[in-house]
Amino acid sequence: MVLGFAKLALMTNITRPTLLLDTNKMINNLDRMLTRASRLNVELVPHFKTHQSKEIGEMVKAKGVERCTVSSVKMAQYFAQCGWKDITVAFPFNRLEIAAINEMVSAGVALTLLVTDVDTVRVINKQLKGNVNLMIELDAGYGRSGISTEDGEAIKEVAETIERLEKVNFYGLYCHPGNTYHTNAIEEIRQIWAAAIKKVNFVRHNLQSINSSLKVRMGDTPGCSVVEDMNGVDEIGPGNFIFFDLVMNYLDVCDESDIAVCVACPVVAKNAKTNQVIVHGGGVHFSKDHLFDEQEQKFFGELVVLEDDGWSAIIPDAKLVSLSQEHGVLKVSNEVFEEIEVGDVLGFLPIHSCLTANLMKAYQTLDGQVFEHMEKVF
Amino acid sequence: MVLGFAKLALMTNITRPTLLLDTNKMINNLDRMLTRASRLNVELVPHFKTHQSKEIGEMVKAKGVERCTVSSVKMAQYFAQCGWKDITVAFPFNRLEIAAINEMVSAGVALTLLVTDVDTVRVINKQLKGNVNLMIELDAGYGRSGISTEDGEAIKEVAETIERLEKVNFYGLYCHPGNTYHTNAIEEIRQIWAAAIKKVNFVRHNLQSINSSLKVRMGDTPGCSVVEDMNGVDEIGPGNFIFFDLVMNYLDVCDESDIAVCVACPVVAKNAKTNQVIVHGGGVHFSKDHLFDEQEQKFFGELVVLEDDGWSAIIPDAKLVSLSQEHGVLKVSNEVFEEIEVGDVLGFLPIHSCLTANLMKAYQTLDGQVFEHMEKVF
Repeated sequence: MVLGFAKLALMTNITRPTLLLDTNKMINNLDRMLTRASRLNVELVPHFKTHQSKEIGEMVKAKGVERCTVSSVKMAQYFAQCGWKDITVAFPFNRLEIAAINEMVSAGVALTLLVTDVDTVRVINKQLKGNVNLMIELDAGYGRSGISTEDGEAIKEVAETIERLEKVNFYGLYCHPGNTYHTNAIEEIRQIWAAAIKKVNFVRHNLQSINSSLKVRMGDTPGCSVVEDMNGVDEIGPGNFIFFDLVMNYLDVCDESDIAVCVACPVVAKNAKTNQVIVHGGGVHFSKDHLFDEQEQKFFGELVVLEDDGWSAIIPDAKLVSLSQEHGVLKVSNEVFEEIEVGDVLGFLPIHSCLTANLMKAYQTLDGQVFEHMEKVF
Repeated sequence: MVLGFAKLALMTNITRPTLLLDTNKMINNLDRMLTRASRLNVELVPHFKTHQSKEIGEMVKAKGVERCTVSSVKMAQYFAQCGWKDITVAFPFNRLEIAAINEMVSAGVALTLLVTDVDTVRVINKQLKGNVNLMIELDAGYGRSGISTEDGEAIKEVAETIERLEKVNFYGLYCHPGNTYHTNAIEEIRQIWAAAIKKVNFVRHNLQSINSSLKVRMGDTPGCSVVEDMNGVDEIGPGNFIFFDLVMNYLDVCDESDIAVCVACPVVAKNAKTNQVIVHGGGVHFSKDHLFDEQEQKFFGELVVLEDDGWSAIIPDAKLVSLSQEHGVLKVSNEVFEEIEVGDVLGFLPIHSCLTANLMKAYQTLDGQVFEHMEKVF
């Protein structure tokens, strides 16, 4: 008996795929990030795109956090309805959504938007019914969105436009160095941040004659979790850290015991010839994000044993090797195979907790509470 | 002016990612499959996991279809609430959901469940409050779920158990030869089906002394769309054909003009140095399913121009080359780049329409109706 599946009495009400949330782990993750932020003298403006949940937002607020970050105007509307009064939409502003912005501004929500071109600044200013903060999104080498930190002229033009116009307040510079996700060592993450901080502060320095009080905000959980030198950064906006996941564990940014969510999946079939176990848990539960194991084989989640007070450490060599819409195929050793029975409920740590939560659309805590997810209710 | 983006007046109410549905294309796809089924003398029991929509179900019903297939007990409950009275749950039955089955049976829904082991048959029979049909799921070589057609003993044991027990009616044999998705030519799809039909009918023949009226149902859109010889098949249960998508187009199973859904995404930024356009449309809209282009580069969707009456043919060399949670990165030629402006709304054909619809959770038809998706309402 290596697993003790027979004893898994955890929440016997689970009959279909269910996203479990260990609030203790989550609060520990939050406390650790708040302590880091305090020690490194930056303000944590946490990104809520990972949990998208009213109740989890409340737990963050209970720690004294009053500003949050979101990834869409819709998500800003949701958290505004939940009572958040200071929200950053960390996505190049979509000018077609100005009406929703005006509604929130009229309701007294302080909004901070990201811009990357002069025309969008003009459009926002023209159509706004109140005031918003703007940050220029900078690209320090990741290559997704933002003006390149090397494109000083373009940055200056946007900066001057913001400064000149009335309804937009030039708040600062935003940089998400997401290339930290593609690293092999903590030291690389730190180097990416050191380079990005330098580039962003070079921009800030060059804009000093236009605005001398610009804030710098940096994103991404890997950097926010391991960088020790945050000189030149005023605010951080990580999201994933609240739950973490296997990507973060494989980057060595968290311990597997920090991962605060787990998908409970019923076992529906076993195939003794292939040592494969079929669970109800597929692409509509986990997402298709994956990692590669040491043999360069794709996998979509790792097995844990559900226990009365949470879940076990990761069971070695027990991975979801393929997913279709509703099927998950778990490949295990002979020994583990023998212990799993049809009708058991297995736990799986997700590859990418943000996408998994977005698909599961609700959380069940270990003491049986249900927390809502925006995608189900808004 | 190759694209005419300036004229894209289609549905000016679109301000954020929106799943467009061309009901004419959808009805054509449905009519074509019904005509095929009739000509090949099989009954179409369409799989509703692709659309998961009450209104689309109604449009199918209007064609005289009275039986449907779903991929989860939850989806069966949804369509039972929508008035469907004959539903197959095409997934190895999850015994933990027997209470939901009993509720539907009590409400007069004729349910057909899939089984792959003796113990599950016994559990169902013991806990059932009414009667259900059972089909044995067979694996003819795909290797996901189902008893291998070569495992005659195991099949016979399950068959005898079903036949012996009172509340379960032995309805037939179910086979989803999903390996048709991994082919390079129509002829290969036909060969996979020919082999699967032969194997499944060999099983049926061997079970004749146990039950001589077993039905054979085969799944998968590729096979159902192109196989000409369906001798030995009684029922087909394809799902994806209702919308089709780029996977089906790349398999040559549909024309690109058959694809009935398209994700409308606002343009939020442009990067002239890289010819990349950032749209609001990411992994939470499209899913992370992808294809590979001729240079073996991953892509996540292809560009079309939205027009007043639908959308254009695919624009060559204009693909979503990366997705993060909310960002889509579109890579285009110089010429196309010049025509796209921030604030435009672009259309993208999805890689995998089932997963995209599951994430978008609602449809907007070309005449402005909104159709519901189960994931938003149930």
